[in-house]
Amino acid sequence: MPEAFDHYPTRLPERHGPVPRREPVIHADPADRRRGPLDADQLARFERDGFLVLEGFFQPREIERFRDDLAAYEHDPEMLARPGTITEPDSDAIRSIFGIHALSARFDTLTRDSRLLDLSRQILGSDVYVHQSRLNRKPAFRGRGFDWHSDFETWHAEDGMPAMRCVSISVSLSENRDDNGPLMLVPGSHETFYPTVGETPKRNWETSLKRQKVGVPALADIAAATRNRGVVAARGGPGTVTVFDGNTLHASSDNLSPAPRTNLFFVYNSIDNRLRAPYAASGPRPEWLASRERVAVLEPGPAQRSAVA
Amino acid sequence: MPEAFDHYPTRLPERHGPVPRREPVIHADPADRRRGPLDADQLARFERDGFLVLEGFFQPREIERFRDDLAAYEHDPEMLARPGTITEPDSDAIRSIFGIHALSARFDTLTRDSRLLDLSRQILGSDVYVHQSRLNRKPAFRGRGFDWHSDFETWHAEDGMPAMRCVSISVSLSENRDDNGPLMLVPGSHETFYPTVGETPKRNWETSLKRQKVGVPALADIAAATRNRGVVAARGGPGTVTVFDGNTLHASSDNLSPAPRTNLFFVYNSIDNRLRAPYAASGPRPEWLASRERVAVLEPGPAQRSAVA
Repeated sequence: MPEAFDHYPTRLPERHGPVPRREPVIHADPADRRRGPLDADQLARFERDGFLVLEGFFQPREIERFRDDLAAYEHDPEMLARPGTITEPDSDAIRSIFGIHALSARFDTLTRDSRLLDLSRQILGSDVYVHQSRLNRKPAFRGRGFDWHSDFETWHAEDGMPAMRCVSISVSLSENRDDNGPLMLVPGSHETFYPTVGETPKRNWETSLKRQKVGVPALADIAAATRNRGVVAARGGPGTVTVFDGNTLHASSDNLSPAPRTNLFFVYNSIDNRLRAPYAASGPRPEWLASRERVAVLEPGPAQRSAVA
Repeated sequence: MPEAFDHYPTRLPERHGPVPRREPVIHADPADRRRGPLDADQLARFERDGFLVLEGFFQPREIERFRDDLAAYEHDPEMLARPGTITEPDSDAIRSIFGIHALSARFDTLTRDSRLLDLSRQILGSDVYVHQSRLNRKPAFRGRGFDWHSDFETWHAEDGMPAMRCVSISVSLSENRDDNGPLMLVPGSHETFYPTVGETPKRNWETSLKRQKVGVPALADIAAATRNRGVVAARGGPGTVTVFDGNTLHASSDNLSPAPRTNLFFVYNSIDNRLRAPYAASGPRPEWLASRERVAVLEPGPAQRSAVA
């Protein structure tokens, strides 16, 4: 059940001022901060900016096979019919595939990659599980973008995620460049929660994953968040990893270029931050959007081993 | 009346292959080619690419007063109520103001700027008039883009423009940069007409100016057009002028950045290319979208003088 007092009220009938973040950004205690792939400088940057772009995190050949898998999915009618497969607002082209780690042993194994796990644990200061996984495709010439939003706002309102102790890791399967709709982030925005206006419609996810209408911060809030430090685009070749706090404001433009843009997103949540009842929605979202059942602690290694354990 | 045979068939019930351009790109005869602001190299590039970006064409102070005018329009309820004022698909923010030269003596005078007139005449090889004028605004954080299209395709289908003898001049009133939805063009695409599929709905302009649904080339056509030479973004500071052939494929992304993007567009048509009955629509569009009455030859100088003449 939700707490009596909700520190992060949202989906409100009227405007509400910004709420300062309550939780730390790096949850590991001082001794554990050093246990992990990020050095002191990277941790300090993540703490200050709410994100970190790590070019060359994966070798191009490591991600090639994932690109091949995805190319196969595009022409698979069963994939198109799955509830977790979201098409573009104005065509049948695949926009997102949710629950990709539950779909394929290969993607599941990638979520258990020890480099990604160590990174998540170093930031969240605990064991972790996958709250959500998705593939975001932006086909060449007409892939649609995503408006400015905080993921945590939705996870809190619609999934009942209690605290800011969740991190998103994006793995670029293609080049991300200025003209193909790269992820853009607002440095420092993770320090503030911007309550949004408007009640969550029933089964909101059926339309919000194509184009989000509620849970979108007011224009004045986005302007305030960007006033001092503007906006940064996460550019980089295939294999680039972008780590960002669940509350960092982000967006991306349409892709009108000839270069398709494909990124994987794995959302790691602390096992101490498991979902409750939604804070501002009439019922929980499906398992493929927000893990409630599948919350076992992630261990490195192939999916097979984990299934046996 | 339309000709018995339409060289540029479009809005068809089914796919039709590309049609090579029939008209020259530079219409001036060899002697007249030299009369105008563009040198031989610029003319050759325009001929090859279908566009030309001229940074610093206007001094920043020359365009400052236009920016002030527009800032005033934004808060003018009469301006919002005009039929030529188009708002964003998902808000009341002004997206376009059509017929801007008929609205203000200052904008009218700008269309008669001798540098712009000489440039248009040099390319079109005749006297010219303004077929259409518009302001395209893209507000910060949420200004929507424009999908890939050829303007000539619409002008031919919906306005009855017979031939490719029309040039668009865009005057940047703000910076155009990678992240604020700059005009993007496909070099060489002006040499081919791509017939589109789908009948023109009645009063199509009432929705098409917010988001175009018919008159959009097939994805395969855009892919073919960009195969050899890709896509170019027209970047530049305020005062940059981009000249492009009416048939050059162009698009622009959403503006999610903190920097608003505002461009003026003047479309100059040859007086020998005046409108006929629409080739693929049930009736003509309003005068503020396509000049049928106001087709007097443009002469340089202030609007007042022209009104007396």
